[in-house]
This record gives sequence, structure tokens and C-alpha cells, in this order.
Amino acid sequence: MTPGFNDEQRGGDKSLNPIYIKNPHLDLMKEDILYHFNLGTATHDLPAMFGDVKFVCVGGSPSRMKSFIQFIAGELNLGNPTDEYPNICAGTDRFSMFKVGPVLSISHGMGVPSISIMLHELIKLLHHARCIDVTVLRIGTSGGIGLKPGTVVITRQSVDASFVPQLEQIILGKKVLRSTELDDTLAEELLQCSKQLNDFETVIGNTMCTLDFYEGQARLDGAFCSYTEADKQGYLTEAYQAGVRNIEMESTAFAAMCKLSGLQGAIVCVTLLDRLEGDQLTSSHDQLHDYQLRPQILVGTYIKKKLNAV
Amino acid sequence: MTPGFNDEQRGGDKSLNPIYIKNPHLDLMKEDILYHFNLGTATHDLPAMFGDVKFVCVGGSPSRMKSFIQFIAGELNLGNPTDEYPNICAGTDRFSMFKVGPVLSISHGMGVPSISIMLHELIKLLHHARCIDVTVLRIGTSGGIGLKPGTVVITRQSVDASFVPQLEQIILGKKVLRSTELDDTLAEELLQCSKQLNDFETVIGNTMCTLDFYEGQARLDGAFCSYTEADKQGYLTEAYQAGVRNIEMESTAFAAMCKLSGLQGAIVCVTLLDRLEGDQLTSSHDQLHDYQLRPQILVGTYIKKKLNAV
Repeated sequence: MTPGFNDEQRGGDKSLNPIYIKNPHLDLMKEDILYHFNLGTATHDLPAMFGDVKFVCVGGSPSRMKSFIQFIAGELNLGNPTDEYPNICAGTDRFSMFKVGPVLSISHGMGVPSISIMLHELIKLLHHARCIDVTVLRIGTSGGIGLKPGTVVITRQSVDASFVPQLEQIILGKKVLRSTELDDTLAEELLQCSKQLNDFETVIGNTMCTLDFYEGQARLDGAFCSYTEADKQGYLTEAYQAGVRNIEMESTAFAAMCKLSGLQGAIVCVTLLDRLEGDQLTSSHDQLHDYQLRPQILVGTYIKKKLNAV
Repeated sequence: MTPGFNDEQRGGDKSLNPIYIKNPHLDLMKEDILYHFNLGTATHDLPAMFGDVKFVCVGGSPSRMKSFIQFIAGELNLGNPTDEYPNICAGTDRFSMFKVGPVLSISHGMGVPSISIMLHELIKLLHHARCIDVTVLRIGTSGGIGLKPGTVVITRQSVDASFVPQLEQIILGKKVLRSTELDDTLAEELLQCSKQLNDFETVIGNTMCTLDFYEGQARLDGAFCSYTEADKQGYLTEAYQAGVRNIEMESTAFAAMCKLSGLQGAIVCVTLLDRLEGDQLTSSHDQLHDYQLRPQILVGTYIKKKLNAV
């Protein structure tokens, strides 16, 4: 191990808010290919394309991130919501990326490994583009615990399946634990935004991140299940008592990588069902569609407010 | 825990080759919604749609799995390679699914969590459709170790980042280890196929599965890197000595879930670069495209041979 790399938890100096790239090898590379974006420093003028970015909104589904850019274009009076916005990552189908003004919208697929690929390349992209003061907002869907379906959860802490606020990574075959602490002020600002909107219920709570959707979230409806309904209820109740209000699959990586790179980050997920009541989504298509708009509306309102305050 | 669920490693009885659903709760459900496929038992006639499936080919990229169905349609004389085949999962953008005759082609995104969602729903789909004698083949891309780029690796054992053939899962907050043993005979048959094809180099070797593409695979070009080039070479050399010939991000979940459900499974990945030589993909677009066709060609030849032998 190289000495001088032990300050992983540094990334908190907000005086300048640059993007921290903690990799001395990167400066020695003649070219950096952001493979999963189909972009690169030798083939694209990244400062010209992305230098003005202030907000990056990320979510699992490519079509949701496309509709978000149309929505935000309308909200910010920067374009028509019915216009087509080109996919900047055309040429690869790993991720989709759209931009309007200072807002970037990117899909990240499902699960920690998928979002971690996207965030490595996003952090390098923002670094190469010399962006400063960037806020990253994850807008997603989740299963709720003890909440009415449709409630929006702003994450206080992202915790693992044992309710600990950490991301376990294996680097060179060895376990490394990273903090998943998020920005309290940003979470509180988002909650205030939601109160002003007064359109749907929003709470601040812990978010549990799992590596599996079925057994990992104590569902009874996967291909395999070796526990009882009582075991499931016991586990979810324990989670609730640890402050967990919703469950998804990307938040630990999101929080850890924001913290490491000095990006202000927040996670805003709507709950599609109450897991204490069931495992499958029984709401109507229209109802689910309406729920999925809520994080977009909240984050859109927040961005508009921040830009108008400048 | 319910008693009678301790025979997780059973799944090996090949006399009938049914799909093992190890979940007593499933039979009690009136309806099963395969949410990420946008399919369900109450809304779709799954036996009519999928009852004849004998081969399921899976891979990360939706467009690659679409082009695979066009290719296999031509190979099996079941359709024109230039025809459009409808996406059976239209209505969701989580996964894409295509079918021609007895062959199903499905995308699974990147990483263990993403493929595990897909496999839970695939195993339930095959069960609901009453399929028997199904073989699942993962066709993917990977980084090679000590191999010429373009070499195809058929996986002998899928190992984790410590070179152990196991998948660690967290169920109800507790660690569960599952075997990632694959079918030796199937791997050998695929190797024989490749010898007859004589079109590109193919080897059998261990495949390392990681939860991260950059730090998890000892790359020097991520947003974060706290180790040296020598550390990297040391780790990859250790992997090579443990029989690892390529690295990807889905094989442990694929192997464990095939084994648990009694599905015959094989993993066929092309290596896009030699990780001992570098981290970034420097081959031309055409060269990379040619490489990515190789697993498709090998698996296509195998399926054709198997169907002609019936």
C-alpha cells in the first residue's frame, strides 16, 4: 500500500467543493476512457460538454431518467417537456445520460455494483470537466416499512443488512469498510421543500441497502425462501426499530462514494408498498406511475429553488 | 427457520431435470407477479408462452441479447437475422427478453444483485411454465489474466475475490454461503464445440466474480485507488495461480442459483483485454465488436448441435 492514502474519510471540506479524485495514477494517463459512458478525454471536450453541471440526478431506470430531464427542462424553463433530449451515452446501452442546462440525469441500473461503475465514471467525468459545487441526488423506488405506500423517504443514514451505516468492499482480496454518512443539511432542506409543496407525505429515515431483492429483503415470493412469515416480520421489525423506513439496493455505494469524493449527496426514494403488509406490488399501474413521479417533483422543486436563489 | 430446508445443495438429480423452486410460500399465492419482467401468472399464459423453452441465454447488455436472438434465429433456420423480434418485457426497462423457438434471450444488467433479481424471476417463470430440461448459458465479456485479448473462457469454477468458489449472501441479516459449482460435462461439451469451430482460442478456467469493476478488480484507473501497480500485479498473479483466467461481475450468483434450482448452467465469456497489460480497453470498436460475437457463436453452435441431435 502507498503511504498517504489513509485519509479516506477526509472529503468533507466544503470551502471549495471540488471533486476529489483520490487516485494518483489518473494524472499519469495520457487518455481516460469512460468505457461505460462511451466518453473519453481524447475523444470528447468534457469541460465544454459538462463544465456547467451543478446537479446530477441519478436513478435505476433509463426511461425514468429520460422523463426526468423532460420534466426538469419544463420546470427550469430551459426547454419543452415534450421535446426529445439526446442520450449522451448513445453508443452503449450500459447507462443513459441526458443534460439540460446545469442538470445531468443518468441511469445506474440495479444494485451496488452497477451504480458503483456509474459513480466511478461520473466522478472522473466531473473531475475532467473541472466542475465545482456539484450536488448529486438519487431519485428512486423502494419498499417501505411501516409507511403508507407512496410516502417519500429522504435518507438520514444508509445502512447495510445488519443496520450498520457502512459499505463493505473487497479491495485486493481484503475487506475495507467505508462510511455511508450523508449530508444532514441537504436532507433537511429537501424535507422543507416537501413541506412547502404539501403534495405527498415525506419523512427522513434510515434506508437499508441490500445485495438481493428477494431473500436479501426477507421476501417470501422469490424462487428460494427458507424462512417463515414470522421470521420475515421479526427481521423487518428489527429494521424498523433501528430507524429503517425503506429498503433499496444502491444507497450504501452512493453515500460512500459521495463522501469519498466530496460530492454533496442525498437519496430520495418513494415507497411502492409497505413490506409489513406484503411483498408484491398490487397497486394499479397508474398509481405506481404517480408514486414514481414524487421524488422527481421534490428534487425538481429543490433544484429550481436553489438556482433561483443564486 | 422452517425445518426441511437444509438440503440447499440437493439440486443435482438429473433424472427428470425439473426446475426446483425451493419456496413453500409460492404455492399459497393466488397470483405471482414477475415485476421486473412485467409478466405474471394472472395476466399471462406462461405455459403457452414459454413451455417449449430448452435454452436460456443471458448477458448484461440488452442490445447484445437482442442481436443474439436475431443470430440464433438464422442459425436454427427459425427466422431471418434481419427481422425484428419483439421485446417480451416491453413495459419495463429493467430487463429485455426475446424468444425464438426453444431459445430465450434475456439481459441481466451489471453485477450480482441485478442478475440475481433476473434469475429469481426466470426460475419462477420456468417453473410456472412447467419447463423441463432447461440449460442456461451466460454469454458475456470479461477482463482476462494472462490470455491474449479475444480468448474465450468457459468457466470451470466461479470464485469470489478471495478465490473461493462460493457466493456470500445476507439473509435475515445473517451470512449464508452457497456453492458455485458448475456442470463439468457441459463445460467440456462447449470446449469440444469450440475445437470443432476452430475459429478463436477457447480455454476452460476459473472465473473471478467481483462486486466492483474498479477497485474490486485492482484497476488503477478508477476515481479512487489506494494501491500501487506492484500491488495490482501481485493480486492478479495470485489470482492466476489460483486458476483464475478471467474476471467479471455476475458468475457467482449465476452458478449458485443454477445449482440451487437444478438448472444446467455454463458461463462463456470473451476477454476484452489482458489485465496484466493494462486496465483500459484500447482495442478498436470493430475489434471489440468481433470479440463480443465469439461467445454468441460458440453457444449458438452448441445449441444447434444439441437440437439436431434430438
